[in-house]
Amino acid sequence: LYAPPVQRLITELGKLPGIGQRTAQRLAFHILRADADDANALADAIREVKERIGLCEVCFNLADGPRCRVCLDERRDATVICVVEEPGDVIPIERTHEFPGRYHVLGGALSPIDGVDPDDLKIAPLYARVERADPPVREVVLATNPTTTGEATALHIAAALRERAAGVAVTRLASGLPVGADLEYADEVTLGKALAGRRAL
Amino acid sequence: LYAPPVQRLITELGKLPGIGQRTAQRLAFHILRADADDANALADAIREVKERIGLCEVCFNLADGPRCRVCLDERRDATVICVVEEPGDVIPIERTHEFPGRYHVLGGALSPIDGVDPDDLKIAPLYARVERADPPVREVVLATNPTTTGEATALHIAAALRERAAGVAVTRLASGLPVGADLEYADEVTLGKALAGRRAL
Repeated sequence: LYAPPVQRLITELGKLPGIGQRTAQRLAFHILRADADDANALADAIREVKERIGLCEVCFNLADGPRCRVCLDERRDATVICVVEEPGDVIPIERTHEFPGRYHVLGGALSPIDGVDPDDLKIAPLYARVERADPPVREVVLATNPTTTGEATALHIAAALRERAAGVAVTRLASGLPVGADLEYADEVTLGKALAGRRAL
Repeated sequence: LYAPPVQRLITELGKLPGIGQRTAQRLAFHILRADADDANALADAIREVKERIGLCEVCFNLADGPRCRVCLDERRDATVICVVEEPGDVIPIERTHEFPGRYHVLGGALSPIDGVDPDDLKIAPLYARVERADPPVREVVLATNPTTTGEATALHIAAALRERAAGVAVTRLASGLPVGADLEYADEVTLGKALAGRRAL
């Protein structure tokens, strides 16, 4: 029904996550109606990230050069490494302004069901980084997601680090009630974790 | 927080309709993770529609040449013209396989509040088309949306056509209950239209 270029655009938009057939049509018609400049700015932005953005050679965060902005920043504490699953997880931690250290991006979480083994993640480079670090690493904060796969990944790395780098503290983000939550509506797993992790006031 | 190319992509994605800041971030990270080929296919599809798709010189539907596929199709009945608001409205009508005629795309609906006057739409070319048609036009089906602005546009065009082209039948899409609807949940305006438009069985 559509001219081939329109159909192609709808198909490509429909490959984006959470974009179904109808939304892809709506976006395509928006792009058709938009100024050529606006549409081309989007096309250029897509090409540009693929050309210019790669992974940091140290921590595998997104970088527009060989190293990411955190690894280039001399003021960041190199003795504390926060381990996250995806590059997108760095942003929310940075927004807290509470973390002075560096990152290590695994590129996913261990999931045998999906065929994701330790070799598929940047786990070996993490060990190498911790073992060779100068000054030595004091703490590794495991900030993988509080999900089944994220927890499994954290446990796997914690066990390995205890063996390979005995002097390094290995910590995990606290699980518990989100700020602003209502006990009445909290799920029992989260509430259980909040109870188990209760702190002295 | 993001490298400039990533921020640029998030900004451009966020300009799409219904795409908020968080969705734009999610899409950007998907594009960053995707194969360069897939991402560039999307960028190319955007550029291609802007380069290759224009409006049909006859009916102002989308076209990848001077005329759209409907206007190029000799089997389509040129004596019946279906008037729609947007190019996207042609598709659902084509999907019914019930309409053998041609189209005329107005490019919107009359809306004095939004400053959309008859001169902003392809209304004058519609009159010219109807007046000059050979063979003459038998019927104009007004298929603007059953909304305030769509109804106003249909009434405006119907009045003008009665004056300018007295021999042409001017019809409007039926309003009524959608197929599969439940009377209990029908809104009163739709149900009122369905009653007023009741047909002998």
